[in-house]
Amino acid sequence: MRILIVILISLSSCAAIAQDHPSLILTAEGVKSVQANMGQVPLFDQTVATVRTQVDAEIAAGIDVPVPKDLAGGYTHERHKQNFFMMQKAGVLFQITGEEKYAIYIREMLLEYADLYPTLGKHPAERSYARGKMFWQCLNDANWLVYTSQAYDCIYDWLDAKTVKKLNTELFRPYAEYISVENPQFFNRIHNHSTWGNAGVGMIGLVMGDAELVNWALYGLDQQVPGDIVKDNDGGAIQLKGQKEAGFLAQLDHAFSSDGYYTEGPYYQRYAMYPFLIFAQGLANKKPELGILDYRNGLLIKAVDALINQTNAAGEFFPINDAQKGMSLGSRELVNAVSMAYFYGGNAPQLLSIIENQGRVPLNDSGLAAAKAIAKGEARPYQYKSMELTDGAKGDEGAIGILRSKDLTLMMKYAKHGMGHGHFDRLGFLLYNGADEVIQDYGSARWVNIEHKDGGGYLKENTSWAKQSIAHNTLVIDKDSHFDGKVNKAEESSGTPYFFSSSDNIQVVSAKELNAYEGIQMQRTMALVKIDEVENPLVIDLFSVQAPEGTRYDLPLYYMGELMSSNQEFQMRNDLSPMGKESGYQHLWLEGQTAIKGKSFRMTWFNQKNFYTVTSAVREGDEALLTRIGANDPNFNLRRDAGLIVRRTDGNTLFANLYETHGRYSYADEIPVNSFTSVSELSILHESADYVVLSFELKNGSSYLFAISQNDAAESHKHKLQIGSEKLEWTGPVYFSKRTND
Amino acid sequence: MRILIVILISLSSCAAIAQDHPSLILTAEGVKSVQANMGQVPLFDQTVATVRTQVDAEIAAGIDVPVPKDLAGGYTHERHKQNFFMMQKAGVLFQITGEEKYAIYIREMLLEYADLYPTLGKHPAERSYARGKMFWQCLNDANWLVYTSQAYDCIYDWLDAKTVKKLNTELFRPYAEYISVENPQFFNRIHNHSTWGNAGVGMIGLVMGDAELVNWALYGLDQQVPGDIVKDNDGGAIQLKGQKEAGFLAQLDHAFSSDGYYTEGPYYQRYAMYPFLIFAQGLANKKPELGILDYRNGLLIKAVDALINQTNAAGEFFPINDAQKGMSLGSRELVNAVSMAYFYGGNAPQLLSIIENQGRVPLNDSGLAAAKAIAKGEARPYQYKSMELTDGAKGDEGAIGILRSKDLTLMMKYAKHGMGHGHFDRLGFLLYNGADEVIQDYGSARWVNIEHKDGGGYLKENTSWAKQSIAHNTLVIDKDSHFDGKVNKAEESSGTPYFFSSSDNIQVVSAKELNAYEGIQMQRTMALVKIDEVENPLVIDLFSVQAPEGTRYDLPLYYMGELMSSNQEFQMRNDLSPMGKESGYQHLWLEGQTAIKGKSFRMTWFNQKNFYTVTSAVREGDEALLTRIGANDPNFNLRRDAGLIVRRTDGNTLFANLYETHGRYSYADEIPVNSFTSVSELSILHESADYVVLSFELKNGSSYLFAISQNDAAESHKHKLQIGSEKLEWTGPVYFSKRTND
Repeated sequence: MRILIVILISLSSCAAIAQDHPSLILTAEGVKSVQANMGQVPLFDQTVATVRTQVDAEIAAGIDVPVPKDLAGGYTHERHKQNFFMMQKAGVLFQITGEEKYAIYIREMLLEYADLYPTLGKHPAERSYARGKMFWQCLNDANWLVYTSQAYDCIYDWLDAKTVKKLNTELFRPYAEYISVENPQFFNRIHNHSTWGNAGVGMIGLVMGDAELVNWALYGLDQQVPGDIVKDNDGGAIQLKGQKEAGFLAQLDHAFSSDGYYTEGPYYQRYAMYPFLIFAQGLANKKPELGILDYRNGLLIKAVDALINQTNAAGEFFPINDAQKGMSLGSRELVNAVSMAYFYGGNAPQLLSIIENQGRVPLNDSGLAAAKAIAKGEARPYQYKSMELTDGAKGDEGAIGILRSKDLTLMMKYAKHGMGHGHFDRLGFLLYNGADEVIQDYGSARWVNIEHKDGGGYLKENTSWAKQSIAHNTLVIDKDSHFDGKVNKAEESSGTPYFFSSSDNIQVVSAKELNAYEGIQMQRTMALVKIDEVENPLVIDLFSVQAPEGTRYDLPLYYMGELMSSNQEFQMRNDLSPMGKESGYQHLWLEGQTAIKGKSFRMTWFNQKNFYTVTSAVREGDEALLTRIGANDPNFNLRRDAGLIVRRTDGNTLFANLYETHGRYSYADEIPVNSFTSVSELSILHESADYVVLSFELKNGSSYLFAISQNDAAESHKHKLQIGSEKLEWTGPVYFSKRTND
Repeated sequence: MRILIVILISLSSCAAIAQDHPSLILTAEGVKSVQANMGQVPLFDQTVATVRTQVDAEIAAGIDVPVPKDLAGGYTHERHKQNFFMMQKAGVLFQITGEEKYAIYIREMLLEYADLYPTLGKHPAERSYARGKMFWQCLNDANWLVYTSQAYDCIYDWLDAKTVKKLNTELFRPYAEYISVENPQFFNRIHNHSTWGNAGVGMIGLVMGDAELVNWALYGLDQQVPGDIVKDNDGGAIQLKGQKEAGFLAQLDHAFSSDGYYTEGPYYQRYAMYPFLIFAQGLANKKPELGILDYRNGLLIKAVDALINQTNAAGEFFPINDAQKGMSLGSRELVNAVSMAYFYGGNAPQLLSIIENQGRVPLNDSGLAAAKAIAKGEARPYQYKSMELTDGAKGDEGAIGILRSKDLTLMMKYAKHGMGHGHFDRLGFLLYNGADEVIQDYGSARWVNIEHKDGGGYLKENTSWAKQSIAHNTLVIDKDSHFDGKVNKAEESSGTPYFFSSSDNIQVVSAKELNAYEGIQMQRTMALVKIDEVENPLVIDLFSVQAPEGTRYDLPLYYMGELMSSNQEFQMRNDLSPMGKESGYQHLWLEGQTAIKGKSFRMTWFNQKNFYTVTSAVREGDEALLTRIGANDPNFNLRRDAGLIVRRTDGNTLFANLYETHGRYSYADEIPVNSFTSVSELSILHESADYVVLSFELKNGSSYLFAISQNDAAESHKHKLQIGSEKLEWTGPVYFSKRTND
């Protein structure tokens, strides 16, 4: 049973906040500066022109405030969404152009909302753990408030007192109460949903001078969530273990690591950044004493940088955890975020090149500053660097490691699970060549907001396929996902960073996973090495496992593109069956397989414009399987992508792979260059729990040796190993060198 | 047994051609003009700089003229290919910069060739019907000569007489003889192979002043092909039925229709255009009395225009017949062709925008002229128009119809078979939205020049899949390809154009196929119609058949992208089997199927950024099948693309479809717009051999009527039909109108 708590509203507390408008994202001073610069700053002027066209078209089409009915993708949902985007834009246009038609448009629309809102019960769709009134979930109601409060702020002083009073008391205060005190299971979490809720309530509080709302927003509600609401629709826990605080400041404390990494991953970080930053902007203007932008050493600005670094060359976010591929730095949230980071974070000229690519700026002080600097030619290319981004509020709960060298970007994940949106992907990786996926992370099984696809929400294949370990480039043991596919278990521990280093010629990330499978220790080490003989850095991949004899291993590799050739002969199937019944295997067709012959497995594929080859050190009894996603997919919710699985039954063991990016080919000139790998062999010279030593040979006869100490990462410690007749000595965790001929 | 014919070489005939150099692609006068303009014409200067970088790098790397050994994609093949490209470029650089290092590079390389060539027998690879010496097939030997003769022309006057004599007698004359009189089955055909042979032999003849070679090139050999060589490697006939002539002029007479369409399709036309144009340029300079550029009303220039019109918005050629997708106006052949068309074809400013997109120009008079005009800002957008391009030397053997409206491009094929490279695709179509494929033509199963893939040649799946009717968007009867999959039978007849018209609001192409299946008449009518209620033109597709009762029809649709939803419930398979044993069905997996319920079939898919919906008028007993390419494909030679097949068993029948392009969605903003079709119903109001009448209704209530007279296309004839209680009267073959409410 839900318990409704009656709250006494103390209107007298309003007086505590200074009452001048606009002051959320625009200030009176900022508006003057914008007006003085109009017509002189191309990127700003273009954005104004674009926004004006959009809003004018909406004004011409007329206002529509329908009774809520549909899910995401449906008419009423998309209409209300469009309404709040347009009101926000109209508000800004009113401020900077002074044209009253924009204020009138907002006022008329708000009055319609004020008429409609009090008549509404909960939204008719019942699938959310926190049903909204305007939309099917409070989350979208909060989105509406975050944008609409900005519009309201822009016309507040222009409105007559009677209208203000009506809107405050009949629309906004009840609206804010509904998504806070009436739905604490939504408002009082540590979760992106609550960030939106906190921001919306706080922002309208700032506009109305309602200190109580601002307090709820900043510090959360002193109120228990009804006991029967324990999970959200994605299976995420409402109440985090040991969670004591709530509200915006608690979100800031818990949602980000000190490196600015957000545990749900960049897709959701992007989504959450907007309310974080836009509310922070309002707080910076109205409650400067909070010092919100300096909070936790300027965490909010650092978080923008962390986001920028989690992208490929096209600015698309790494699609780890639940993430729709293609979301990028070009999104509306990042248009606001990057200009804010520029304006409030020290005017870094390398941010300007990203803003230039975005092609538009927010219509406020920060957007104007960025556009002006770009017009002056101050933009510099963004310098992407290799980095480890720690996870966990204190930065001690795993991390992701990002290695960059030439056009290659490699990301390995050994972070926390990522709450309800996490995937069972410990020690998984992805690899890009510029903007091209080489080894893909599947992302989520979802078409966001597209009504055809189950209303635009998560599809059931998101759980049955996309979250499972076999859907990722990581080791699967005994056909079961990490943590037996249980979010609660996965949430209890994180991956364990072991070693991270980036120099120009060799960059290494190494991490352990000790909890995904009981009694089994896994460690993955990936290195990007530059050597003279080949055109691109090579990727060394060592997956070392300590496990009982008879363990069945599957190591998948989701290569992107068309298979060119292999040194193995595959037996292709004439009839396809699903590879299993659960843990994601039920979605894989087995297209072909082979019992590997010899000590090397090699496969070359082509994608977009380049060739790629994986060379693996294998052993008698290993199998290679060629797979295709798409079995048990009644609604065509999955992409028919290819995969390669190396299968082995063993105890302690080591999987060693080398990936080479080579050559090129264009369909317009049809001249292949360097279409074959330069690597002739990959050999394991030593494997034990403590050490791995690997060598690889090139076709020109050169040979290289790579060694890692797996349990002692001290920089100063010396290691000695006897490798056949050779004595190998080195200092520090990793050794890499060209071998000289004896 | 092959019969070798001994030819008496008459050196005295040399005197007939004026001896001045350069004169193939450059003239002394042209060179002066280029030199005078250097540094002032950006696109030209950039091209010079790029070419210089390439050639300088090759000079620095040193000359390598290896003994021929490999197939396409292998080292010796690619090295010799690189050599001739570089010599040609070095020759041009020598002429326009005067720097001797370029001439020396060519001389040294040619002397190595002169040493090597006399030692060579036939190339060791035995798979060609006309084995070359430098390469595995004479075709590539001819490529070498076409490019190398240009280089030789550029340094001819700079060489000493002794070197010239050595090269003429020890390298070039024997080389030319080998690919002509020693391989008449290669040289004396009407085929793109012979075009290269004719051009190479003719061009080196022009350079050396060897009139005999020029005569062979222009008029062919008076020599019989050995009787045991009747087909080439692609199954094409060496001797066309009734072929009396050979040589370059005969190619011009037979290879193109009077509209400039080339029966093998644009992919091969692009390939053949280079020798056609480059030899023509030499002939225009050295034998102006031939008037080669005016031949057949300026056919060569017209052919360039026909090529440009067979592309999508990215300049990529329609991949009909054997064609690797992605080949485009950016290819080296078109870089030469479009500038030539500009220079010799009346300086059409709309060609300049294409040259601008190419980003480089040929380094000769025509390239200079184009680059200068572009620098002056004379470029205008190319105006793509709807057009019918007839096939056959006389233009009376079928055609392709191209309809363009807004961003849509529709192409229907009812031409000749296309010789050895033809596909069994009568009445097939493809549809683009800008550069995006909406309904694809598969193209060829081949990775051109990529050694991994069977040496870069045609793969066996090209015959077993790509050429078969089921691989195309056209009707397949009783699971057998058109003409029973036999090239000879297909070559005997062409499709029959019925009606073509393009006005702004309704464009129609209609054609018949009377020979593909014995005793069966097929007619397809496709229309692009613009109506006020929807954002894009609609495509109406009527496939009408007259056939015996009990005929089994399969009508495939190779939609590109991700299936969104359907109004039918498909039963998805849990085990996949190939759909048949032959005619291409062995390569299709059946993923799901349904016995269609109701009178309308509807399916929506999403591709790149837009939504697409097909609405079909169906009947009781029809089935819909969802297919996936890739069965029986042991080497992963086929793409795993999706298809939809509507299956029906009937006698005379009509398939009616409507395709709508609607809405948009971007992954960076996640706001779907107009993701559902506006079409609510499609109904057949009348079907008979003579008439089809169709109506479709929109969700807003509007209704439209389309009618066609299928056997009387006279513009002035009147038609009357009783449709229920309505009397329908119209004039001319087609009627289209909005229906008014009674």
